[in-house]
Formats: sequence, structure tokens, C-alpha cells
Amino acid sequence: MEYTHGGDIYRNRVKWDFSANIGPFGMPPSVREAAVRGVEDSQAYPDSQAEKLRKEIAQAEGADPEQIVCGNGAAEVIFHLAAAVRPRQALLLAPTFSEYERALTAVGCACHFYELKEENGFQVGEDFPAAITASTDMAVICNPNNPTGVLFPEKLYREVIKRCARTGCLLAVDECFQDFLENQDRLSFRTVWEKETEKCNLFIFKAFTKMYGMPGLRLGYGIAHHPDLAKRVRRASQSWNVSTPAQYAGLAALKETDFAENTRRYVAGERRRMRRAMEEMGFFVYDSRANYLFFRTPSKRDLYEFCLERGLLIRKCSNFRGLTAAHFRVAVKSREENDVLLDILRQSLD
Amino acid sequence: MEYTHGGDIYRNRVKWDFSANIGPFGMPPSVREAAVRGVEDSQAYPDSQAEKLRKEIAQAEGADPEQIVCGNGAAEVIFHLAAAVRPRQALLLAPTFSEYERALTAVGCACHFYELKEENGFQVGEDFPAAITASTDMAVICNPNNPTGVLFPEKLYREVIKRCARTGCLLAVDECFQDFLENQDRLSFRTVWEKETEKCNLFIFKAFTKMYGMPGLRLGYGIAHHPDLAKRVRRASQSWNVSTPAQYAGLAALKETDFAENTRRYVAGERRRMRRAMEEMGFFVYDSRANYLFFRTPSKRDLYEFCLERGLLIRKCSNFRGLTAAHFRVAVKSREENDVLLDILRQSLD
Repeated sequence: MEYTHGGDIYRNRVKWDFSANIGPFGMPPSVREAAVRGVEDSQAYPDSQAEKLRKEIAQAEGADPEQIVCGNGAAEVIFHLAAAVRPRQALLLAPTFSEYERALTAVGCACHFYELKEENGFQVGEDFPAAITASTDMAVICNPNNPTGVLFPEKLYREVIKRCARTGCLLAVDECFQDFLENQDRLSFRTVWEKETEKCNLFIFKAFTKMYGMPGLRLGYGIAHHPDLAKRVRRASQSWNVSTPAQYAGLAALKETDFAENTRRYVAGERRRMRRAMEEMGFFVYDSRANYLFFRTPSKRDLYEFCLERGLLIRKCSNFRGLTAAHFRVAVKSREENDVLLDILRQSLD
Repeated sequence: MEYTHGGDIYRNRVKWDFSANIGPFGMPPSVREAAVRGVEDSQAYPDSQAEKLRKEIAQAEGADPEQIVCGNGAAEVIFHLAAAVRPRQALLLAPTFSEYERALTAVGCACHFYELKEENGFQVGEDFPAAITASTDMAVICNPNNPTGVLFPEKLYREVIKRCARTGCLLAVDECFQDFLENQDRLSFRTVWEKETEKCNLFIFKAFTKMYGMPGLRLGYGIAHHPDLAKRVRRASQSWNVSTPAQYAGLAALKETDFAENTRRYVAGERRRMRRAMEEMGFFVYDSRANYLFFRTPSKRDLYEFCLERGLLIRKCSNFRGLTAAHFRVAVKSREENDVLLDILRQSLD
């Protein structure tokens, strides 16, 4: 089976990995230390209920522990939601993160796609709510979307929620990259129009992976608006799905609020700087608000190979629905690393 | 959802945990160090294909890497096999490890049970192969069985394999505890009668958890006789299901052949000593060959609570199909710890 994501440093010689959307500061020392303590305590089974971690996540999210499902990465939560609900028809964005389609296809669900148009900057249009029909069992929104970084339009939140409530459609929103958004951009589907969400079967995906630089440890979670759905999702899982190092790391990460705030600010600054520089060079850069930039190269040169030959891995996006060999995604990393990227991008246009 | 396993040290005050079947020597230092290196390298995504680990497991097992599926613990492999195959009717032993039934029920499979009789010492009888009928899509054998530790009768291997080949039944054999068996008892379904297995759709579960004292890290694997089934099982999974610490730990564990041999020898000696002592006290101890003992107390006293009040956790087996409040399982641990257990068991009969 072909691997369809970024971050494959195992089969490429890579000095700089811009293909995975990990924060610029890596793993905070406190998280690293907690994970090492987790290794020491791994001679016992992990807490199958992740009781402490769920309690702390709930507190940070203003939710009840019964609404929280912890997973071996957010990707596992996606698979378990699909397995628990077993939708027959789903609506996804195109392009978007490919694990939704994989998880849904694995349970025999037919996926339909709302196509994001390049000429609209890959923005969701006002016709989106109407794409959720009576036969749509589940709609998945990635917000900000991956790989584009484009936000879901605020003015459509309410309509989507109302429509899902009315048609009985489960609304799954991947908010894994909300953590990187600046305050004015951050807006969870959970926090708006409480009255309408009450009637909507809403499920949110979140991850520790990106903000806290810990993708190798595997930790993500889901928040079900209705605790009963959380219980069904937990039941789709084996008894010990979250390792002890991951549980400890998550508890430490939740305390790193300053780290998260600094990361947000730094990423926003670097993203603006990179976008400007790339646009000046002649790249078409779309309106990402996340910790990555999505762009099209004006050159006919194979940019992926060009970068790789220089030890730099970028995410080629040709395997996303609706994208081409000219579309790429790069992470926003440290200033020094970003300068290396900008330099190589510049050379690619010579 | 009620937790139905041993090892729940998170909601009990425990000084000695005999409820989880972990080897007596804990995690070898080399495994611990590898897992810590894995934490350091967790700022990148884990290898989604676990390429190195699958190669080394294949070599150790005399298999091809394409036959190997790595999992976030053997329990995950069980769930993914069920999800990939989606059997409608399955045959399980009773009593046996409860994750099979959970995984099968989660995909809507009806479970039928071959009841192991106490009067036969919970041995599988010669009528077992006939219990696999034309409508059995999958049969699961746990060998040695958990919680009893009883071996599947050697003389029935061939007949079961032939019957599964004839009826088209997938044969899943959990050999997680084979690692602890003495040489004369160890006999994988994979290694016998190659010609018959060729026609049988055979799938084996194995774990690193127990032998290498690393349940908190989560690492198990499956061996599919036919690589095509392995591919289907991998497809039922998210892209990064095995953490970097777990992959590194597994690679280190595979080199610990002396550790494994010493553990086997030590466990066999202690198991015999404990069994003799417990039988002398008046407990009914069944014929376990694994690293745990399964027994019935002759006393009316609540043995579980009696032990727990003294800081010792044992596995009460009343939630296994066909067992009662008088049945228990205890791990074989270090001599000193086992003496504590024997002492408390003795007191329980006063």
C-alpha cells in the first residue's frame, strides 16, 4: 500500500523535513521527561481508561471527561469513530487529509466530495450546507483544512450545524490545527451557538502531535458533544490503546500553555514572512492560517525532486483529490530552517 | 464500560500485581534504553511501515516481512483482523481472553463458544474440530489458553488445520504465551504440517508485552500465512499505529534471546514450585504450562478482597464465560514475590 502522507524520513535522505506539519520548537523538555518516566513505568499496562489524562483534557477544553476519547494519535480516533458509527454515505472536502477517506472506506462507507475550487482559493462556498443531504450520514470538515490551511467560513458554522441537526447527519470536525491559529482566527465548532449544537451530533478531533512536537509518541483525542457517542467510540477500541509514555506526555503538554502561546505567535510571524517572500518570488500561495503553507509553483521543474536532492523534504500534493504535480505544502519551522527553504525555492525558479 | 482484565493498578492500591501476566524480570535494560531513544526521536512521525521491525520479526520467525503486521499491542492486531475480515460467525473457546469477543462483536460478528469443561481440566476435547462448521467464518484458538494456561492438544493441530482449509474458515491462533513455554511444550500452528497450512488461512497473534515486560509501550504483531491477508489487516489501520518508542523497543527485544531463555527456565521452575505449594494447601490448580497459574479456591472467603486488603492484586475470573467467583489466575513472578503470594494464599485458608 502506498504511503500517502508527509514525514517519510525513513525512505528518503533528509536533512530538513518540511513535509510534516510539526511545530518549530520540537518537543518541550517537560514533555520529553514525562515520556521517559512513562517508559520507566511501562512494565505495567497503561491505564486503559486514561482517567487522569481525560480529566485534564476535559478541564482544558471545558468539557466533561465522559465526552473525551483518547487515541493512539488523532488518526486512530478517526478510524474508531468510523468503526463505531459505520456511516453508509459521507461527505468530505476535496482536497483534504486522506485518513478520513481511508477510515470510512475501511468500514464500507461511500465517500462523496465537496470540491474546493482553485479559482476560489480553495475556500468552502455558500453551497456547502446544501451538499449535506438527507442521505448523508456523516460530514467531515477539516478546519483549518489540510493541506490548504484555509479556514472554514465563520458565517457558515451555524447553518452547517443546523442542517446536520435537521438531517441527523453526524458532524465530525478535525480541529487539530486550531491550536496554531491566532486568536482572531480560532473558532471551534464546539464553542458557538450552544443551543444549536445541542441538537447536532458533533464530534471534534484534536491532537497533541503537532503543537508539542510528539508525533512519534502517538496521542490524539476526540470530543463528542454527546457522551453516549464517546462511549461507543471507546468500545470500538482495544482495551489499552494509549501507551503510558503518551499518557504521561499528554499530561505534561497540557501544562505548557506558555510554550503553546509562544509557538502560535512565532508561527504566525514566520508564516507571514515566508508567504510574502514566496509571493515575491512568483509562487502562488493560498490563504493558510495554520502552521504550514500551501502553494503552486509557476515552474515546470519537479520541485519535489529538486528539494530532495538538496536534502529538503516537502509535501508533494499530487495525490490529493483535485490537486496537481504543481501543488505543494511546507511546514512553518524555525527562522533559520525557513531561510534554507526559501533559498532552495528561489534556486528552483532559476 | 466495565474493565474486564487484570493489571488495573490505577483504581486499586497495589503493592504486588499478580493480575497481569508479565514476566518476572521486567523490562531488559537494553529495551528500556531503546525506548528512551525512541522518545528522543519522537519529534518525527514513526515509520508507518515499521520496515526495520517487520524485517527483524520476520527473520526471528522464519517468515517474510510481507507476512508481518505490527500493532499497538497484540490487542490492536486482533481488532484489525476482525475489521479486515468482518466474519459473520466465529467460534471461540470459553473461557478465553475477552478481547476476541470484543473485537468480533464490534464488527457485528456472532460469537459461538466451545465450552471447556472443568471436569476435563479445561482441556479442548476431540470434538473440537467438528465444532468448526461450514458457517464458521473464523475460529480463534488461544494456545496456551488464557486464563487457564492449558495447551491445545497436539494431536488435534492437523485435524483443525485441515478442517479450516476444507470449510474456508480463517484460523486465528493467539500464541502470545508460547514464548514462556518450555521447549517440549512449544509448538506453533505455523511450524507443523506445512503442506496442510498452505491451504489454510492461518493468522497468528504474538506480543512483546509479556516476555519483555513492556505492556505500557504497546507492541504486538500478527503473522499471516498468506501475505495478502497481512496487507488487508494493515489497511484496516491508521497510517502510524506503532509508536517510535515501541518500534525501537521491539528491535532491542529481538536481540534479547538469552534473557528470554533465562526467563523461560526460571518461570518453569517457579511455576512448578508454586503449583506444588498451592496444591498442598488444598487449592485446585489446573495444568498451566504458561507464566501464570489458574486455580479454584476451596474456601468460601472472597479471596480477591482478602488479597487486595494485603496490597496484592490477583485476577478474579468470575467475568470469564463459564467460570465462577472461586476461580482465579495469578502470574508467576520472582521467587520473593511468589513467596509473598503463597503466604497470603495460605492465610486465606485459615
